[in-house]
Amino acid sequence: MASAAASSCSSISMMFLTHSCGATSSTAHRLLPPGCLRHRLHCHPLQMGPTYLRCLTFHSSAAEPPSPPHVVLPHASLTTEANTKVIDGKAVAKQIRDEITVEVSRMKEAIGVIPGLAVILVGDRKDSATYVRNKKKACESVGISSLEVHLAEDSTEEEVLKHISGYNDDPSVHGILVQLPLPSHMNEQNVLNAVRIEKDVDGFHPLNIGRLAMRGREPLFVPCTPKGCIELLHRHGISIKGKRAVVIGRSNIVGMPAALLLQREDATVTVVHSRTNNPEEITKQADIIISAVGQPNMVKGSWIKPGAVIIDVGINPVEDPSSPRGYRLVGDVCYEEAIEVASAVTPVPGGVGPMTIAMLLQNTLISAKRMHNFE
Amino acid sequence: MASAAASSCSSISMMFLTHSCGATSSTAHRLLPPGCLRHRLHCHPLQMGPTYLRCLTFHSSAAEPPSPPHVVLPHASLTTEANTKVIDGKAVAKQIRDEITVEVSRMKEAIGVIPGLAVILVGDRKDSATYVRNKKKACESVGISSLEVHLAEDSTEEEVLKHISGYNDDPSVHGILVQLPLPSHMNEQNVLNAVRIEKDVDGFHPLNIGRLAMRGREPLFVPCTPKGCIELLHRHGISIKGKRAVVIGRSNIVGMPAALLLQREDATVTVVHSRTNNPEEITKQADIIISAVGQPNMVKGSWIKPGAVIIDVGINPVEDPSSPRGYRLVGDVCYEEAIEVASAVTPVPGGVGPMTIAMLLQNTLISAKRMHNFE
Repeated sequence: MASAAASSCSSISMMFLTHSCGATSSTAHRLLPPGCLRHRLHCHPLQMGPTYLRCLTFHSSAAEPPSPPHVVLPHASLTTEANTKVIDGKAVAKQIRDEITVEVSRMKEAIGVIPGLAVILVGDRKDSATYVRNKKKACESVGISSLEVHLAEDSTEEEVLKHISGYNDDPSVHGILVQLPLPSHMNEQNVLNAVRIEKDVDGFHPLNIGRLAMRGREPLFVPCTPKGCIELLHRHGISIKGKRAVVIGRSNIVGMPAALLLQREDATVTVVHSRTNNPEEITKQADIIISAVGQPNMVKGSWIKPGAVIIDVGINPVEDPSSPRGYRLVGDVCYEEAIEVASAVTPVPGGVGPMTIAMLLQNTLISAKRMHNFE
Repeated sequence: MASAAASSCSSISMMFLTHSCGATSSTAHRLLPPGCLRHRLHCHPLQMGPTYLRCLTFHSSAAEPPSPPHVVLPHASLTTEANTKVIDGKAVAKQIRDEITVEVSRMKEAIGVIPGLAVILVGDRKDSATYVRNKKKACESVGISSLEVHLAEDSTEEEVLKHISGYNDDPSVHGILVQLPLPSHMNEQNVLNAVRIEKDVDGFHPLNIGRLAMRGREPLFVPCTPKGCIELLHRHGISIKGKRAVVIGRSNIVGMPAALLLQREDATVTVVHSRTNNPEEITKQADIIISAVGQPNMVKGSWIKPGAVIIDVGINPVEDPSSPRGYRLVGDVCYEEAIEVASAVTPVPGGVGPMTIAMLLQNTLISAKRMHNFE
């Protein structure tokens, strides 16, 4: 296990955005149920995977033993400590969920309103069913009411639209999420566009993205995963203003909105992507790196400026015969190398992943507060 | 005059985004009628200013004398020539207007439809009146019909909205432009949001900007000035894909959409702004620089990588007693220094300026074609 982890970071020369620096990950992908990035980000239930061989120095000066779960102290300045810090997304997400629980309860007591999230699931994909179940559980854990409709694989687009329309008009629903992917006979964009923008807690509507891009405008919702990345920085006291930031990947759901968010906070942002000629050279200039490309161990230690902060959004399966499932999850960043160079880094799993659902709950709460003018 | 031009590029140390590298421009600003950037970009009527002391090498190998107007050969590769090339926006804009004239005429003959642009002017600002007059002239020159309503300074917002509503419903109007600034008693955002997105030829609606930011989505209109910048690159055969690009300035109307456009064309883009710590160092890495900050002569020769291409959006007045108006216009880029280092550069005036109105006409034509399903 230890040697597998070490070899996964070997410095094999590779083209940008090819798949792995280990030899085995290409087959591992076939082991996993297929799913779009949004799936994996929102809902990956897997918290298995290797323990970290070298890390957990965050509490090295504290009295508690340095074993997980690492309790993260929000707003603690990481930069004053000598060793690399693991940014514990699980702990931060837990804290945010606790805060949401308090707010949901306060809202219920004050005005009798319970925030509600509706999820529409179409078809019988096991992974989708798991994701929806996890969201439901997360809602329950903070007191948000969850509604769900499960339609058959051969439903028509009109049936889905009818349910969206119903939720659009339902005052007890403050957020609507259509579980993707939809069956191939449906037009995903049509379906997503049917969700009322005031209930689009995913924040992917172009109108929201436009507002996110524009100075002086405010989006109704910030997309969950990039919002989670920024929240991790905030809650660790990592300043963004004036910093050089590199976002690797330019997807609509993570890279692009993450770049817009960093720029809103006055970072100087460069977006590195598959057509970038010298990603290593550019990434090495960054004080803050957010990587969201889905390429296992792509970002090596040599890509990282000493002292940089790394937010690793990638959740990539690589083959691991020692695991009961036959694979384990790694990030876009070669964790073992990064932890030697960076000042702070998110692990995978347990970094950005848990933040995504926490932000979904937060967006649902925000939506309910806005609709009921509750502060 | 010559010495004034030389001193305007002196290497006086300055903070980023302070006003000038010459000593006199701060007073010069007060000489000009006030106006928002959008005004100046869309409509600056001033084609005065200094002649270029050293430039016009674009046709040095051609038989024609190297004096303006320089006929630009679209798609000519600039990079194969030894000397710095002046990107002649006036000539490119002329060519585009000629193309539009042909298309407008073809459309009229084929389906009897004439594209129409409606401009709403409120109040008695002389500069606004000039801008509107220029747009009207430009429309006439290509055969686009122009409608105009001129409301009194003390009109109500409701009156403006009523006229917008009328133009929204008028099938002969394919583009609507509200001349800014509006009188202070009106809510600019309310008024602009009232324009039907299908007629928002300015392209500033958040829904448009969102689509511009998103992969796989297409905006209805691309904002005129950044569109003009990219068009200049295209028509000069300057490739964008894989290039390092720096956009200086992050305004909603130029910098931000310019960055999104460059990224759509696969450049690796960094946005430099007022909070950037080391703008010179970052800008010097760029193969393509688009500057849109409104700071006279801010970008020095030392900021420019040899061989870079520079698109200078700035139109800044600096004092010039030798001019009949007492001032002349310069760009954000120190032209005299840039021309020694860059492979191609836009002059000010005569670079990006003329492209903005050309793009407005093009957007109006695009709108008419789309509404009438004419290809």
